[in-house]
Amino acid sequence: MTKVELMTQAVAQMREHLTMPEWSVSEKIVLAAHILHSHGHGSGLAGQITARADHSSHFLTQRIGQGLDEIRLSDLLTVDEELRVLKGSGMPNPANRFHAWIYREHPEVTCIIHTHALHVSAWSMLGHPLEIAHMDTCVLFDDISFLPTWPGVPIGDGEGELISKALAGKRALLLAHHGLLTACCSVEEACIVALQIERAAQLQLLASPVGECQKITPELGKEAHDWLLCESRVQATFYYYARKALHEFPSLLM
Amino acid sequence: MTKVELMTQAVAQMREHLTMPEWSVSEKIVLAAHILHSHGHGSGLAGQITARADHSSHFLTQRIGQGLDEIRLSDLLTVDEELRVLKGSGMPNPANRFHAWIYREHPEVTCIIHTHALHVSAWSMLGHPLEIAHMDTCVLFDDISFLPTWPGVPIGDGEGELISKALAGKRALLLAHHGLLTACCSVEEACIVALQIERAAQLQLLASPVGECQKITPELGKEAHDWLLCESRVQATFYYYARKALHEFPSLLM
Amino acid sequence: MTKVELMTQAVAQMREHLTMPEWSVSEKIVLAAHILHSHGHGSGLAGQITARADHSSHFLTQRIGQGLDEIRLSDLLTVDEELRVLKGSGMPNPANRFHAWIYREHPEVTCIIHTHALHVSAWSMLGHPLEIAHMDTCVLFDDISFLPTWPGVPIGDGEGELISKALAGKRALLLAHHGLLTACCSVEEACIVALQIERAAQLQLLASPVGECQKITPELGKEAHDWLLCESRVQATFYYYARKALHEFPSLLM
Amino acid sequence: MTKVELMTQAVAQMREHLTMPEWSVSEKIVLAAHILHSHGHGSGLAGQITARADHSSHFLTQRIGQGLDEIRLSDLLTVDEELRVLKGSGMPNPANRFHAWIYREHPEVTCIIHTHALHVSAWSMLGHPLEIAHMDTCVLFDDISFLPTWPGVPIGDGEGELISKALAGKRALLLAHHGLLTACCSVEEACIVALQIERAAQLQLLASPVGECQKITPELGKEAHDWLLCESRVQATFYYYARKALHEFPSLLM
Repeated sequence: MTKVELMTQAVAQMREHLTMPEWSVSEKIVLAAHILHSHGHGSGLAGQITARADHSSHFLTQRIGQGLDEIRLSDLLTVDEELRVLKGSGMPNPANRFHAWIYREHPEVTCIIHTHALHVSAWSMLGHPLEIAHMDTCVLFDDISFLPTWPGVPIGDGEGELISKALAGKRALLLAHHGLLTACCSVEEACIVALQIERAAQLQLLASPVGECQKITPELGKEAHDWLLCESRVQATFYYYARKALHEFPSLLM
Repeated sequence: MTKVELMTQAVAQMREHLTMPEWSVSEKIVLAAHILHSHGHGSGLAGQITARADHSSHFLTQRIGQGLDEIRLSDLLTVDEELRVLKGSGMPNPANRFHAWIYREHPEVTCIIHTHALHVSAWSMLGHPLEIAHMDTCVLFDDISFLPTWPGVPIGDGEGELISKALAGKRALLLAHHGLLTACCSVEEACIVALQIERAAQLQLLASPVGECQKITPELGKEAHDWLLCESRVQATFYYYARKALHEFPSLLM
Repeated sequence: MTKVELMTQAVAQMREHLTMPEWSVSEKIVLAAHILHSHGHGSGLAGQITARADHSSHFLTQRIGQGLDEIRLSDLLTVDEELRVLKGSGMPNPANRFHAWIYREHPEVTCIIHTHALHVSAWSMLGHPLEIAHMDTCVLFDDISFLPTWPGVPIGDGEGELISKALAGKRALLLAHHGLLTACCSVEEACIVALQIERAAQLQLLASPVGECQKITPELGKEAHDWLLCESRVQATFYYYARKALHEFPSLLM
Repeated sequence: MTKVELMTQAVAQMREHLTMPEWSVSEKIVLAAHILHSHGHGSGLAGQITARADHSSHFLTQRIGQGLDEIRLSDLLTVDEELRVLKGSGMPNPANRFHAWIYREHPEVTCIIHTHALHVSAWSMLGHPLEIAHMDTCVLFDDISFLPTWPGVPIGDGEGELISKALAGKRALLLAHHGLLTACCSVEEACIVALQIERAAQLQLLASPVGECQKITPELGKEAHDWLLCESRVQATFYYYARKALHEFPSLLM
C-alpha cells in the first residue's frame, strides 16, 4: 500500500479504536485547565480557558482569583460579551474581554485557551515568530500567527480587536511579551495545540543557542499537521492526559 | 467604555470579590517562606524573610539553621537593630543585619525578603541589571535597582548601609554575586514581587542566549505595573499560593 | 595488576555479584516503558517499545492510545510485519511500521525503542549528529548513527526502509526533526542506551552554548563503551531503575 | 563593632546554637548519599561516597549495583587498599580504586565523594575550570582543582595516581569528561562542598551563554570561603538536608 492509503486506513482504524468518555464542555474545561497546569502553563492567576455557550457569543469562563489547578465545575460562570455574569456567581477575569472579540468574529471557534506558559513567555520577549522544526509540533505548521506588538494589559476593547485580527484564520497565536492563544473548534484541540506551543517554545529555546534549526519540508510539515490533528488522535491524546489528571485528582469532576 | 474606565471598574470589582483570610503578620511570614521555597528560592540555610514589629525598627525573623520550608510560627524571633533577641528563643541569622538598616532608613517598608533563588543567582554573576520584557514581570517595571558591587558576606554595618542606599526608593533590588531583595509595605507584596524577580531572571536566562529582548513601551510597562500591584490582585495571588501551601502542609499555621 | 587485568577481574566479579530477577520479555517491556517515562521520554502518545516474538519477524508492541507510563502486561499485542494483530486485542500504533523493517533486516536485533525525549527532540532540529564527550555516554561511542533527512510521519514503507538502512549496524540512531531509536539484543540494553542518548543530548545542549566540547581519546572512548555495555553492568543498571519503578508502582507487573 | 568582630562573635554564637545529632560515620554516609541523590547527583550506578575507617587506609564504601538513593547502613562494606572486603558482604565498585590512592596520599582526608552530577558533567566536557562568581559557591574559592585530562574508566592504578595528584591540596576537583570529587575532613563537609560544585556548574551554565561572569574580589571570596566553611555552619546545613532526607525516608537509618 502507498503511504496515503496506509494513512487513510489508519485514520479509519483510529476512529474505531480510540474513543473517549462523553464529557460535557464544562467537564472538558476543568480537565483542560488541570492538564495545562501540569504542563507548566500556570503562572499565578494568569491563564484562561473559555468555551462558547449555546452557539451564542456568550461563553463559559472561570472566576477570577483561581489558578488553573483549582477550577472545578461549580466555579464556571456563563458571561455575555461585556463579561456580565449570566449564570454562576463570582467575577470573571476582566482580561477575558478579548475572548468576546474572538467569539464574535470567528464563528467557527468554540474554545479559547490563553496562558503565560514559561517557555512561551520567554520566547515571546524576543520579537520572533516560533519556528516549527519538529514532527510533534507540526500541529502548528503554518497554523500559528504572531502579534509582534504588545498592546498592554488586555482589559480594553482595543486589545480585543487587535488580538482577534492577529489570529488571521489560524488555530494559534503567539503574543509578544505576553503568552499564547489557541482558538479551536473543540476544547480537546485547543488544549492539545496549546501544549504543543509550549513544547515548541521549549525545543526552540534549547536548540537555538547551539545553532540554527533546519527547516522541514513544507509538504511533510503539512502532512504531519493534518495527521496529528485528525480528530480521533486529538481526542486520544486529550483522553490520555485527562486520565492522568483524574488519577491525580479523583474528585476533579465532582 | 475606555480602557481606563474598564480598569477602574475592574479594580473596584476586584476589591469586592477578591478577599483573603485575616492572617497575622507572623502567619503571613510562615506562608511566604513556604511559597518562596516551593518556587525555587531555597538554597540551604540562605534566605530570610523579616517583618517590622509594632512600627518600631524591631523586626520579626526566623532562627538561624532553618530552611525556608521549615519555618513555623513558634520559630519566629523578635529582634532589635543589633539582632538582640527580644522575644522567642534561638539565634537570628547574623546576615540579617542589613535588614535593620533598611527598616531604619525606609520607614514605609514593613517587610523584607532576601533569597538566593537559582536564576537570580545566575543572572547576578553577569554584572547587568534585569530587563523587564514580559507583562507579568512588569511588577518590577522601573521598580528594581541594581547593586553591581558585592561587598562580601553581609555581616557588617558597611554592607547594611550599602544595600539600604542601593534600594533607592524602589520595591526591589538585585544584588550582584548574591541574590534578590524586596522591601515592601506588606508581606504579600514582598512575596509576590520576589517571585516575579526570579521569574524575570529565568525568562531572561532562557531568552538572552537566543537574541536580544525587545523593549516594551514605557507607558504600557507602567500601566501594567500599577495594574498588577493593585492591592486586591496582590492579595488574591498571595492567597492562591497560600492555599497551595496549606493544602500541602495542612498544619503549617499550627 | 595492569588496568586490563583489573577490568577483566572486575567483569568476572560483576557477573557473579550482579544478578537480576528472571523477568519475561513482556515484563521487561513494561518495566522499560516506565523507566523511559520517568526519565523524560514521554511525549503524549508518541514513543514505542517493541520486542521480537519467538525468533520470527513478529513482534510485541503496545496498543495505540496509551502513554509509556500506562502500559501493563495485558496491553501488549503480538503483530506481524503488516501490523496485523496475532495475539491480544486493540490497534497497534501505525507508526510502528518501521520496526518491522528493522526486525526483518537486522536479525540480531530483538528489541527496538523509539521515543521523542525532550532534549533529543531539541537536538534533532539542529542538523548535527550527537557528540559523545562524557564517560557515561560512551555507551554511544562510535555506536550511534544520524539520519539527517526527515521523511515525514513514519507510516509508510519508504520511511521504514530509510530508517532501517540508516542504523548501519549501530545500536542507536538519531532521527532529525523526530527523536531517537535503539535497536539492541535485549530490552535491558535498548533501554539503557536510550537513556544515555537523552542524557547525551541534555549534556550537549547545556554545554554547547558555552563553548565547544573537547574530544575524548578514541581508544579510551572505545574502552569505556565496552566496559559500560558489559552485560552484567547493563542488567544491574536496568535492575536498579526497575526497582524504582516497582517501588513507585507496586502492581506494575500484575 | 567591626565586621571582623561581628563575624568572630557570630561564629562563637553559631557554635553554641547550631548543634547536630551525634551520628556515626556510617549514618552520615547514608544521609549524605540521599542528600546528594535528592540534589541531582545520581546517574545510574555511578557515584560513590567513602569514608576512612579507623585512621587506616581502609575505608567504608557501598556495594556495587546500588544507586545513591538505595544505600542503607547494612549495605556498607569495609575494604582495604586493593578493594578486598574486610567487613560486610558484596562487591565494592571497582571504580573506587582511586579512593585508596587519595586516602594513602592525603592523610588529612577522611571522606571522599565522587558523582557525575548533571551540570558538572556538562561543564566537564568544555575543558575549562569552574569559575567561582557567587557568594554561596565561595566554599570553592581557590579550593577546587581541575584535571583537564580524562584517563578513561578509573579502574586502574594509573588513574588513581593521576586523580590523587590533581587534588593538589584542595578540597575539590573537577574531572574532565567525568564529574566531581571532594576530599574533606568530614562527611558533612565533603557533602556540602559537593552540593556547591553542582550548584556552581549550574549557575555557570545558566549565565555563560548570556555573557562573561564578573570576577569577585579575591579577598572577599576568601572571607566568604572561610565563613561558609566554619564547622558549625557546615554541620547546620548538613543537618538541614538530613532532616529533609529523614522526613522523606523515616526508616533511612534503621
